[in-house]
Formats: sequence, C-alpha cells, structure tokens
Amino acid sequence: MNDVPIISGYDYGTARAAHSPLSLAELRELERTIGWTDADGEAIAMAGEVLSGQEEAMVDSWRAIIGQQPHLAKWFFGPDGKPDEAYKAAVKKRFVRWVTDLCRRQRDQAWLDYQEEIGLRHTPAKKNKTDGVETPDVVPLRFLLAFGVPVIQGARQFLAKKGHSTDDVERMHSAWTKSFVLTLVLWSRPYVKDGLW
Amino acid sequence: MNDVPIISGYDYGTARAAHSPLSLAELRELERTIGWTDADGEAIAMAGEVLSGQEEAMVDSWRAIIGQQPHLAKWFFGPDGKPDEAYKAAVKKRFVRWVTDLCRRQRDQAWLDYQEEIGLRHTPAKKNKTDGVETPDVVPLRFLLAFGVPVIQGARQFLAKKGHSTDDVERMHSAWTKSFVLTLVLWSRPYVKDGLW
Repeated sequence: MNDVPIISGYDYGTARAAHSPLSLAELRELERTIGWTDADGEAIAMAGEVLSGQEEAMVDSWRAIIGQQPHLAKWFFGPDGKPDEAYKAAVKKRFVRWVTDLCRRQRDQAWLDYQEEIGLRHTPAKKNKTDGVETPDVVPLRFLLAFGVPVIQGARQFLAKKGHSTDDVERMHSAWTKSFVLTLVLWSRPYVKDGLW
Repeated sequence: MNDVPIISGYDYGTARAAHSPLSLAELRELERTIGWTDADGEAIAMAGEVLSGQEEAMVDSWRAIIGQQPHLAKWFFGPDGKPDEAYKAAVKKRFVRWVTDLCRRQRDQAWLDYQEEIGLRHTPAKKNKTDGVETPDVVPLRFLLAFGVPVIQGARQFLAKKGHSTDDVERMHSAWTKSFVLTLVLWSRPYVKDGLW
C-alpha cells in the first residue's frame, strides 16, 4: 500500500484523521454480524484485482445516478445553487481511492479511524472543512444509506468484466456487499444520538 | 390484505401506530435513490408468491444467526440475563408478517407510518412497551444495519426454492434487496440526531 498517490484530504493513517470510538473487538463483532468469513477475504482480494483500473468508471457510474436526481445532487451545490465542480473533483479522487481501499486494506485501527473520518465528512462536524468549500453541511443519512443499493448492485457488472466464472463473480459480489455495508455502518455513527449507535 | 390474522402489537394501519414525519413525496425520492422501477414491482409481487409459506422458515434462519452471536442475542434478554422467550415469540409473529408485508403492501401512508413504528420499537421511545417486557431499551443501530447483510443474502435461497429460472430469482432478489433497504432506511430515522436524517 505504499503506492498511494498524493490525494488532497486523503488522511488515511495520519494524525489528521479522526479516532474511532469503536474498539477493534467491537469491529470484529460487526464483521461476524455481516457474516464475514475467510473465504470472503480471498474473494475480496480477487475483487481488488478485477476492479483494478475500473475504479474511476465505477465512481462515474454512481455519479451519473446522483446527477440525475436533484435530491442527491444538491449536497454538492455551492451557495450559487450550482454544482461545486472543484469540490466534486476533490471528493471524486478520494471516492475512487475508497474502491481500492475497500478491497485491499487490512481492517486495523488506521482503517477503522478512516471510516470514522469519512462518516464525519458527511456531517456538519467535518463536511466542507477538508476542502474549504460552502456546500450544504450534511448529506442526510437516509440518502447515504439508500444509495447503498446502487453501490451494491452496480458493482456486479464491473466484477464480471474480466471473464471470471459466474460462481467467482457471485463470491466477489457477496464479499463486496459485506465489505461495503460494513463501511456504511461505520459511516453512520456520527449521525446517531448518544447511546443508540 | 384482509386476511391478516390477529397478531399482538401488529398496529399496521391503526391509530396506535406512529405517524411518519416523512411525506409521500419524500418517500418517492428514496424509492428513486434505491433505483426502484416498475419491473421491481412485478418482481416483488412474484417474490411474495414464492415466499408464501416460507416466511417463518426465513425468520427462523435469521433467528438462528442471532442466537449464535451474543452481541446480537442480548437485546432479547430479560433482567435475569436469559432470553425473554415470550418477547421473542411476540416479536417473531410480527417479523414473519413483515416478510409478507415487504412483498405485498402498497407503499402508502399506512405503510410509511408502520415503518416509523417499527423503527421506534428498536429504540428507547418504544422498545419493550408494545409487549410490556424488560429487555434492553435499544437495539443499537450498528447491529440493525449490519444484520441487513444476512437478511439480503439469506433471502436468495428461499427465492430459489420453487423452481424459478436463475434470471427470475435474480430479479426477485434485486427487488427484495431494494425493498428491504428502503425499510431499513426508514427504521433508522428515530436513531438520528435532529436535522441529520
């Protein structure tokens, strides 16, 4: 993982990232809850290979969906009511990197902390601050969660693009779904009332 | 839908259910976000037929997973530190009914209101009150969301049990995933800080 290009605001593994209040033992509970297995570990590694080079196309496919729905697009708008293109471009680089990280990173303290950081960047605590912009100060949780469906279902076509068997695609897709939901769960934490998360 | 047996605490369509603060127009935004289409409407109706008679087996399969994980099982425990079997039995009847409703109900105001009610029953606002029990007063949101993976992935085997083509099973499973995530999103509302949902 030493091949990470410089991405503005990509504070993975740095002191600039938030610290997750969740322990690693509690993270393992969540892994059990989503049904994570050693076989998923192999399948997500295979997915990392298959998706290599396709990350930006995946993000473009999700951005196209967002762009078609005003209730999703508006969280990227500046005070002038138009898309903040510089913000969109900055977030996109990190979103592309997230695809790689989802498949390849060990789920250690640095990983856990960066999920907390991503969650915070969707809430008033940190949205806009990383990039110094003036878009709305939150992406409401209902849209973040609901958009999970296109992210889960849309991945399959990319997993199938390199000639793997249907079974392999299914195994990779299952591991993708589990990995993604795990991050989504962690992102939801800063939105939730004390004691209820 | 006039064939609903009497289920204790099943307050669907009654004045006892909560009122959702979401409008039907906002519900339609969420339907667009998850990618709901007319074809999904046909597929979920087919799923309702296929799952008919299998609802309890589905709930049993999820309950078995919960029972194996102390961090999931404990939310059903009474003050004596043991499972509250009467509570589990009461919730189970509604959970079984939820499978039917997920496939068959129109998403109107009564449906929306009952999703709010289900959400509240997982939080201190209403947990235990419907059944007059003394289990913990919340199911933490992270477990509710993470358990979505077994609910999504576990449905496929039941959708495949009546001899439908792989394509039909896939279509039904996609519609199941969308429908389920939509309810999960709505259940999350009472957990979230003001203005962030």
